[in-house]
Amino acid sequence: MQIDIKKAQDFCETLFAAYGFSRDESIIISSVLLRADLYGIESHGIHRLVRYDQEITSGQVDVRVKPEIVHETGISACLEANKAMGQLVGVYAMNLAIEKARNNGCGLITVRNSNHYGIASYYTEMASAEDLIGISMSNTEAICVPTFGAQAMTGTNAMALAMPADPYHFSYDASTTVVPRGKLEVFRKNGQPLPDNWALDAGGNPCNDAAVVVENIIAKAGGGIAPLGGLGTQHGGHKGYGLSIIVDLFSAVISGGLTSNYVNRKIDHTGICHYFMAIDYGIFGDKTAIRANMSKFLQELRDSKKADGQNRIYTHGERSAEMMKQRINGQIPVNEKTLEELKIIAYRLGVKEL
Amino acid sequence: MQIDIKKAQDFCETLFAAYGFSRDESIIISSVLLRADLYGIESHGIHRLVRYDQEITSGQVDVRVKPEIVHETGISACLEANKAMGQLVGVYAMNLAIEKARNNGCGLITVRNSNHYGIASYYTEMASAEDLIGISMSNTEAICVPTFGAQAMTGTNAMALAMPADPYHFSYDASTTVVPRGKLEVFRKNGQPLPDNWALDAGGNPCNDAAVVVENIIAKAGGGIAPLGGLGTQHGGHKGYGLSIIVDLFSAVISGGLTSNYVNRKIDHTGICHYFMAIDYGIFGDKTAIRANMSKFLQELRDSKKADGQNRIYTHGERSAEMMKQRINGQIPVNEKTLEELKIIAYRLGVKEL
Repeated sequence: MQIDIKKAQDFCETLFAAYGFSRDESIIISSVLLRADLYGIESHGIHRLVRYDQEITSGQVDVRVKPEIVHETGISACLEANKAMGQLVGVYAMNLAIEKARNNGCGLITVRNSNHYGIASYYTEMASAEDLIGISMSNTEAICVPTFGAQAMTGTNAMALAMPADPYHFSYDASTTVVPRGKLEVFRKNGQPLPDNWALDAGGNPCNDAAVVVENIIAKAGGGIAPLGGLGTQHGGHKGYGLSIIVDLFSAVISGGLTSNYVNRKIDHTGICHYFMAIDYGIFGDKTAIRANMSKFLQELRDSKKADGQNRIYTHGERSAEMMKQRINGQIPVNEKTLEELKIIAYRLGVKEL
Repeated sequence: MQIDIKKAQDFCETLFAAYGFSRDESIIISSVLLRADLYGIESHGIHRLVRYDQEITSGQVDVRVKPEIVHETGISACLEANKAMGQLVGVYAMNLAIEKARNNGCGLITVRNSNHYGIASYYTEMASAEDLIGISMSNTEAICVPTFGAQAMTGTNAMALAMPADPYHFSYDASTTVVPRGKLEVFRKNGQPLPDNWALDAGGNPCNDAAVVVENIIAKAGGGIAPLGGLGTQHGGHKGYGLSIIVDLFSAVISGGLTSNYVNRKIDHTGICHYFMAIDYGIFGDKTAIRANMSKFLQELRDSKKADGQNRIYTHGERSAEMMKQRINGQIPVNEKTLEELKIIAYRLGVKEL
């Protein structure tokens, strides 16, 4: 099904207002959510409303609170998010990082006790839109098994970085696992075996059975997804494992929040932690020259020799930018099942259905 | 062959003095070099002296120069390294980052026109030894092929991060390629086929023949090593490709230096670029509590359930710390071929052989 983007936006805004968010807050949450659909990252888009509904109704998300600054310097802050909606926390925190970068060259913000904040690149691109470098990370519920381990200890743990360039900003946004959980669910639904090096069973052995892995994850019975680089060390799995620790370090460890292995263990508390950073790259020299350097390098990558059978090399953020151009004045795809679920939610909240 | 570490140190210090470095400089270079041997990273240790000898004698490294600050703020600097020895540049730059972090909370230093600086973790651990978070990155000659590409455009492009913790500091130091070039050379020497997903031929096709890949790399004939995550996108190769761009961004793009695809194209100039950052994590809250959080999380990772057949989960930096404990008052392994080559160099410089 294709849904008009304007209609989807109205629906989301009305829905979030019905939960008790202010009009401004509803606009922000809807904007982050639908940006994922505009970018073609459906897993983090309107499809996720169903999960947010559960989190709000279960009390994991508190509609009435605001994040508080518990420690602050001219270049940094530690925020207590008080279980606020992740998107509101993210926009607040990145705006604070941007303000500090403008005033003092950079801003580093760590956040504890938040919730799922959608796509990390929404926040990093807030910075790049202001001609700054933006960085963001977030931990999640543990799903990734350390090298030589059998138990998930770190999360999908995304890392994102955006830097201004022309004609496309560079915008990297990726989990530190070999694949996100959603990919396993697609293989399970299709009854296909998982590729090697993606996942482990409860004994920490390589496992190609998507159903086994997903069911173990849900039951917290052990096993899970391999870090970027795969199982063991042959393809660098220990590197992805290390990167996932770095995400927990900046989000949970320095904020005093919950590391991935404690996230989402309570019915009314996820404890998800984030990190945001903005850098005014003018602290290194002439911004016009630096931006031109970046644009030139990215163009050289795109122009470099293609593999046999390939006709295009992408730089990060390019696909999303192209997809958004197509969809921004048009439609986004929404699957039937999601529409059905949203209908039930809308009915319950007394809101006109999508 | 096992060589006494003290003897190796004396030899290196005498050798570097013979090239014209001051006594203090010779001590620093030797310390960085031998740290790799102490950590068990032989590829970056005394074995590499042969290559440094070539770089010094060819004029890629200029013995008489010092790095200069070309742009500076209270939290940042851009350095022109003037082709100085990478280890001297690295120690100077990280000390500058540490000083800025002590005075202003963090220090971000970008460096152009340097040379190979050895193991990145030497610098990040300078910061962690001062109870700061340390970050370092360096580009290198292009060896890594972008996703869907056929031509090496980014380097081994290491990323390193160290953070204080007890009983072991966390110290991550890894290339953003699936493996470093040295690994391919071992397979070539042993006549073994490369594992899948490691390398590409000149047409950008998967290639398991180590000799073909290494010879193409040397001849700059195309192909090379896959980014972390492997070939294509199935195992996240586009993520490693993006991380390698991020290393070039912080080292070469913002310093106005050469990106990997231009590094080492001249007989008398490598143009290697670095990045250094130190963060006083006290800008986020109480340092004792934060350090304890990190120690607890790392211990939980090490204590988590092991895969069948495994009896230990490591955290990054643990192996190196243990290896150094063994070797610091003892011996390091040096292979016969390296000893032969060092004998020739020593003779040429009129220095007593190792």
